[in-house]
Amino acid sequence: MMHPSSEHSSAEPLRAKDTQQSGTPPPLTTAEIIAAGAELLTPFRADTNSLYLTSELNELGIEVVRKTIIGDEKERLALAIARGLQENRLVLVTGGLGPTEDDVTRPAAARALGVPLVRDPEQENIVRAWFDGRQTPMPERNLRQAEMLAGATALPNALGTAPGQYWEREGRVLVLLPGPPRELQPMWREQARPRLRERARAAGWLHRTLRLGELGESRVDEAAAPIYTQYPAITTTILTAQPGEIELHLRAPNVAGRAEQVAELADRLASALAGHLVSAHGESLERVVISALAARGQTLAVAESCTGGMAGERLTRVPGASQVFNGGIIAYTNSVKQEMLGVEKTILEREGAVSEACVRAMARGARRLHQPDWGLAITGIAGPAGGSPEKPVGTVWLGCAGPDDVLEVRARRFHGERERVRQAAVFSALWLLWQTLNGTM
Amino acid sequence: MMHPSSEHSSAEPLRAKDTQQSGTPPPLTTAEIIAAGAELLTPFRADTNSLYLTSELNELGIEVVRKTIIGDEKERLALAIARGLQENRLVLVTGGLGPTEDDVTRPAAARALGVPLVRDPEQENIVRAWFDGRQTPMPERNLRQAEMLAGATALPNALGTAPGQYWEREGRVLVLLPGPPRELQPMWREQARPRLRERARAAGWLHRTLRLGELGESRVDEAAAPIYTQYPAITTTILTAQPGEIELHLRAPNVAGRAEQVAELADRLASALAGHLVSAHGESLERVVISALAARGQTLAVAESCTGGMAGERLTRVPGASQVFNGGIIAYTNSVKQEMLGVEKTILEREGAVSEACVRAMARGARRLHQPDWGLAITGIAGPAGGSPEKPVGTVWLGCAGPDDVLEVRARRFHGERERVRQAAVFSALWLLWQTLNGTM
Repeated sequence: MMHPSSEHSSAEPLRAKDTQQSGTPPPLTTAEIIAAGAELLTPFRADTNSLYLTSELNELGIEVVRKTIIGDEKERLALAIARGLQENRLVLVTGGLGPTEDDVTRPAAARALGVPLVRDPEQENIVRAWFDGRQTPMPERNLRQAEMLAGATALPNALGTAPGQYWEREGRVLVLLPGPPRELQPMWREQARPRLRERARAAGWLHRTLRLGELGESRVDEAAAPIYTQYPAITTTILTAQPGEIELHLRAPNVAGRAEQVAELADRLASALAGHLVSAHGESLERVVISALAARGQTLAVAESCTGGMAGERLTRVPGASQVFNGGIIAYTNSVKQEMLGVEKTILEREGAVSEACVRAMARGARRLHQPDWGLAITGIAGPAGGSPEKPVGTVWLGCAGPDDVLEVRARRFHGERERVRQAAVFSALWLLWQTLNGTM
Repeated sequence: MMHPSSEHSSAEPLRAKDTQQSGTPPPLTTAEIIAAGAELLTPFRADTNSLYLTSELNELGIEVVRKTIIGDEKERLALAIARGLQENRLVLVTGGLGPTEDDVTRPAAARALGVPLVRDPEQENIVRAWFDGRQTPMPERNLRQAEMLAGATALPNALGTAPGQYWEREGRVLVLLPGPPRELQPMWREQARPRLRERARAAGWLHRTLRLGELGESRVDEAAAPIYTQYPAITTTILTAQPGEIELHLRAPNVAGRAEQVAELADRLASALAGHLVSAHGESLERVVISALAARGQTLAVAESCTGGMAGERLTRVPGASQVFNGGIIAYTNSVKQEMLGVEKTILEREGAVSEACVRAMARGARRLHQPDWGLAITGIAGPAGGSPEKPVGTVWLGCAGPDDVLEVRARRFHGERERVRQAAVFSALWLLWQTLNGTM
């Protein structure tokens, strides 16, 4: 759910005039992103470049008001570019700059703008040099990549042969960028962003993220709405980041005094939701757990059954985790639970592997890995098979063993598919450790 | 990269006529998907409903030709719906059916179609009953969810209060669906799909996926292009599914004789790329490895360093993995490598943890987990820190120990960020095991 501020929505009329009153065009405040490529209209691939570009544009104080995804069809793409520039003063097109017939962005843009494509000798040399450097014969079709929109500036491509293009007239800007993220991102940073920064509002946007654990979106909103509605200039968005974890995003244009308001709102929300706060500045749960252990000079190991290594994988996403994380035992079968973790056979026979007694033994057993201060254990039924009336699919036991004979356990029942149950189990295990560390059980 | 077939692109003119020649409208062949919701225009959330719907529409023989993402702006959304229905005969809108002021899909659709919204007593009863059943007072605004486009059919929502809507006139169809996937998907399956099936071509699309390992997109295309270009009626798409893994998707409308052509093309591609074939019917590498081990009655354990549990996590995504997968040791520190896997201290001191000698010892050590037939080991430098001139970031050793003293090892150098290196390392380890099992090293 999203609660927009009153200031920056639809600030630009749907059909802004092409001509400006004075010589200096107004700053760019809204943009449209168009992604070109037939593979983006298959079930297999989502457009992710637009998430990167949205974050970057927001930093410049530019709001994205529409995203359009088009295949390799010149007519439809030309229409989308023309409409985009009619309704917003900035349009970015990603993809379709390759050398083949399917790469239609250049001719589509030319048609939309009503300008010719001109072969640029300098770009032609760059394309030829790229193939010479690799001692590969250049297919003639690659010279298409040297065709520029009349009046456009070439944006050099450090990692490929297709230059981007920056075209501006009467306060309207069209930017063509390559589709592969590893080509797009450096070109954006080094070539496009500096040009757009001059044309945008100086200040950019403020952004603050709070993360919360084990609370649903609607419960977060119940607690947060009475507070954030007092700050109408700040847009508050509540999102489920992963099963068990909620993100609260606060965003606002960076005008005078606004930074203090965002900080105040964040502080008030953090206080109101303190019992569920993972972090007040956006850090992930695995990162705050590792930082907390590092600050205490303590270490951790895991014992995982149904999650099969996912808790270890999550913790080791954090660079430098080895300072804190000894490792783990993936005890997927009962034999390994017995042999490597010391779970007694009678527990497995009488209570089963998904039981309080088993998770206690597993949490203690994790402390066999070079004697860490903390042992964290997960055992459950991820599904789709293996459930029973007493222990349905989604039943998970979590355990945390620590210094001074601390041993905290809890059961959870998660709903949804196998992967969702596993992700929720890992989150809840890290959350149990986090609460135990903080004494907030 | 994508190589479209010649048959089904732009089959429908950009501006089809509203009126039809005969009483029976032509079958639906193209569609536009519009996603409504301000959170989809933030950097934090991609539209994924459209991937699901695209797969489903393709099954009905309907191609998606444009996707548009709009915020909570009634004007812009109405414009998008009107244009969508002008240019395609089927438009699906997801999201914006909630009870708040931000949920603008109903009024936007009414404006686009030029029809009024009418409060439906039956839907009103359903909304009231939903709150009564939960003994919760109903906010008056929730009755907005009972407002129907004049002439539309309500699509009941089994998991929420917002019904979907199905509206049809003169061969044009507009479908409104809720945004949450767990509400959208059952409504699609049970309510919308049966209606659209009657309006689509009977046959649907054929789809076949091949998966390939350790080969780049351009190398796959070099080998595949001379073959698939002989089948112009089949669309071939080459995608990187994850670091190290390529997917080849073959798709075609299911007309007479086409199924045999798709099977023939798939067979020829599988033969040409046999040395790199993961599966000829789309199964993941972890699934084919587990199936192969299960067929032999063999078992597996892993020893992971830099991947921290990711190989175990990947293997245990497959339901029923416990038949084959004993578990693993996450040996993140040298102490755990020594104590749990039996890696000699002198190896760690002289050659380091990222070395051939260490990965050999780790692969053998993995066989301590209840004596599996196979032990698979990964040790490397995922970065960003920890590299050296001799062992730069991205250096990974992989090892596979098995029956009859089999012990295969190899080194790889991966490029990119920490997560990419880790994913590629897991893929290569499973690939090493797969090749060893098949004797195709």
